Amino acid sequence: MLIVQKYGGTSVGTLERLEAVAERVSRTRKEGNDVVVVVSAMSGETNKLVSYAEHFSKAPKQREMDMLLSSGERVTSALLSIALSELGYPAVAMSGRQAGIQTDKSHTKARIEFIDRKCIEKKLKEGNIVVVAGFQGITELGEVSTLGRGGSDLSAVAIAGALEADLCEIYTDVDGVYTTDPRIEPKAKKLEKISYDEMLELASLGAKVLQTRSVEMAKKLNVNLVTRSSFNDNEGTLITKEENIMEQPVVSGVALDRNQARVTLRGVTDKPGIAAEIFRKLSEANVNVDMIIQNVGHDGTTNLGFTVPQNEVEMTKVAMSELNASQSVEYDADIVKVSIVGVGMKSHSGVACTAFDTLAKEGINIEMISTSEIKISMVIASKYGELAVRALHNAYELDK
Amino acid sequence: MLIVQKYGGTSVGTLERLEAVAERVSRTRKEGNDVVVVVSAMSGETNKLVSYAEHFSKAPKQREMDMLLSSGERVTSALLSIALSELGYPAVAMSGRQAGIQTDKSHTKARIEFIDRKCIEKKLKEGNIVVVAGFQGITELGEVSTLGRGGSDLSAVAIAGALEADLCEIYTDVDGVYTTDPRIEPKAKKLEKISYDEMLELASLGAKVLQTRSVEMAKKLNVNLVTRSSFNDNEGTLITKEENIMEQPVVSGVALDRNQARVTLRGVTDKPGIAAEIFRKLSEANVNVDMIIQNVGHDGTTNLGFTVPQNEVEMTKVAMSELNASQSVEYDADIVKVSIVGVGMKSHSGVACTAFDTLAKEGINIEMISTSEIKISMVIASKYGELAVRALHNAYELDK
Repeated sequence: MLIVQKYGGTSVGTLERLEAVAERVSRTRKEGNDVVVVVSAMSGETNKLVSYAEHFSKAPKQREMDMLLSSGERVTSALLSIALSELGYPAVAMSGRQAGIQTDKSHTKARIEFIDRKCIEKKLKEGNIVVVAGFQGITELGEVSTLGRGGSDLSAVAIAGALEADLCEIYTDVDGVYTTDPRIEPKAKKLEKISYDEMLELASLGAKVLQTRSVEMAKKLNVNLVTRSSFNDNEGTLITKEENIMEQPVVSGVALDRNQARVTLRGVTDKPGIAAEIFRKLSEANVNVDMIIQNVGHDGTTNLGFTVPQNEVEMTKVAMSELNASQSVEYDADIVKVSIVGVGMKSHSGVACTAFDTLAKEGINIEMISTSEIKISMVIASKYGELAVRALHNAYELDK
Repeated sequence: MLIVQKYGGTSVGTLERLEAVAERVSRTRKEGNDVVVVVSAMSGETNKLVSYAEHFSKAPKQREMDMLLSSGERVTSALLSIALSELGYPAVAMSGRQAGIQTDKSHTKARIEFIDRKCIEKKLKEGNIVVVAGFQGITELGEVSTLGRGGSDLSAVAIAGALEADLCEIYTDVDGVYTTDPRIEPKAKKLEKISYDEMLELASLGAKVLQTRSVEMAKKLNVNLVTRSSFNDNEGTLITKEENIMEQPVVSGVALDRNQARVTLRGVTDKPGIAAEIFRKLSEANVNVDMIIQNVGHDGTTNLGFTVPQNEVEMTKVAMSELNASQSVEYDADIVKVSIVGVGMKSHSGVACTAFDTLAKEGINIEMISTSEIKISMVIASKYGELAVRALHNAYELDK
């Protein structure tokens, strides 16, 4: 098999941990696999470099930031390569440029455009473990670029896609994807498999295992992604296409998002173009609107509700004050969003009904509802958040 | 003018010092010059990275060491570029690769083969101050290489040569080149100008301002080199070709080398090939032999004397024990080498005579003498070292 493994900052945070990573990589090689490793900077390094830059400038030039920040991953890749060689496994460190990773010109948040697979393949054929500095690439003009948040995950997925690897393992400090947050529901179980779409919904709902961008790319490139811990040998969670999951549960997970606030506009004039104007204002202010509910109105006016991230409430207030209309605006940050996610919903009826029943039995009032093909989200008072998660987890028998 | 400035690790050792460097660079630009800056890693960084690598391996792979160590200079170049931009001066950081510095394949001690001057010139023409990461280049195959000890000085001199710069300023923590070590002779004066050849002799005699390799390259490429301090505004010392120095003093400096040991072979069979065998053994053992004296022999045997660095005495003993001959070997580490250097010697007679007289008047016995066109070196008992330096400094009126 050809396996791409990615180790994050915590996994390579000390020389001792880097040594443990070298052991794990060499074990994978010993089992007969070809291995490409993608590494992040040692934890703390990137923040240190950012603070150095901020000593000189509040808005340091992005091109120079890329030159600066890309050095951390180069250091880790060289050290891991040295450690692997010492264990008797030929290894070679490669920068983003050397690994053939070409990006667009958007410094500090570049997109991978193309990977020249020959670069890594050549080194693999020579019998090497290839250790690639993550998070970075090179532009058409030869400038160093970095990929932004979660960039090393993206490097790993893109390389796995380009090389048509059998597996792309993302190592972090958690065991995988759980049916819900084990700190809320101790009976939460680790999922063996989950589809790309379910993972995307969970990621956007705040499950911090993987970033949306990486899952989207894995889906697009058809990469079998595994998320697992570098601190133990537990099996992780495989994120793959729906067809690869034989027995699809109706619901895969329950998520709790504490970061939302509800905005309610009362007495909105009920004529075409008003909603468009409101959301154009919000878009211009870069506010990320999530759920939107509009009721049928009467007396020529209607009520409009939506949720925004809590830290964007102030921006929302400014945007709403610019509307020249008569509606009143209310803000409520004392809410949470509870969601159930599962591809099985598509072919099962009654899933939503079970959710509403469950919350009703607990005496929890549902204030807003929004659904997609594979997700049902409900806004409730924040004091009921954890109770709702446990009740839903139990109702869909996720602990079985 | 086009000026290349190089700042060493101490000069960029803290963010505050880096800020002072930015001030100085911007002043040079403000005066109407085009400026290329070459920077080292912040002091301590390279040692830290070396210790990381040694955690994993006693003999880390050289290719990976180059990837590892080259990161320090990249960080400094990015930070300085950010600092310059903040001061209002357009600047751009360039890695060795981006600056077009191509080297041979000898990792960790590469030689610069070629500099594509178009790379830097393009950025200069756009109005930038160009900040190049020193110490590094790229091989024909695209691998990162480093230049070994004093590598950033070499980068600066090579770039100055390729761009035909008017001046190459090497900033360190000393003011320039002195007639002798001011800690020995407080009347020592800073030299305004000195020729390449004199500087080469002084460098090989232990004057630590510049490394021999850089001076040799400056001579070859005809680069006007200035060594000065980054901690004050004193004029430094210009190192240039002999023709540029109008009034050549007979003697430019007096140097004291405390790092030598004398080896004496007595009763060496006086026949062809014996000396060759002795020095081949030393060469095979990588011993750096300095002065060699052979007296005319009698009785078919002769005495052979030479000096070696003190830390190579043990290697010398091993090499000498492999000789299958009858000579006896004596070692004396209690000696120093005092040298006077000056291009004026070529055209002045009596220079050596003055030296010998001076030491004789002080009651100092000269144990070995060796001369070149522009240098006279004398081995004496180490207890007389400082006295000899002061006496010679006075005899040649170097304080005038």
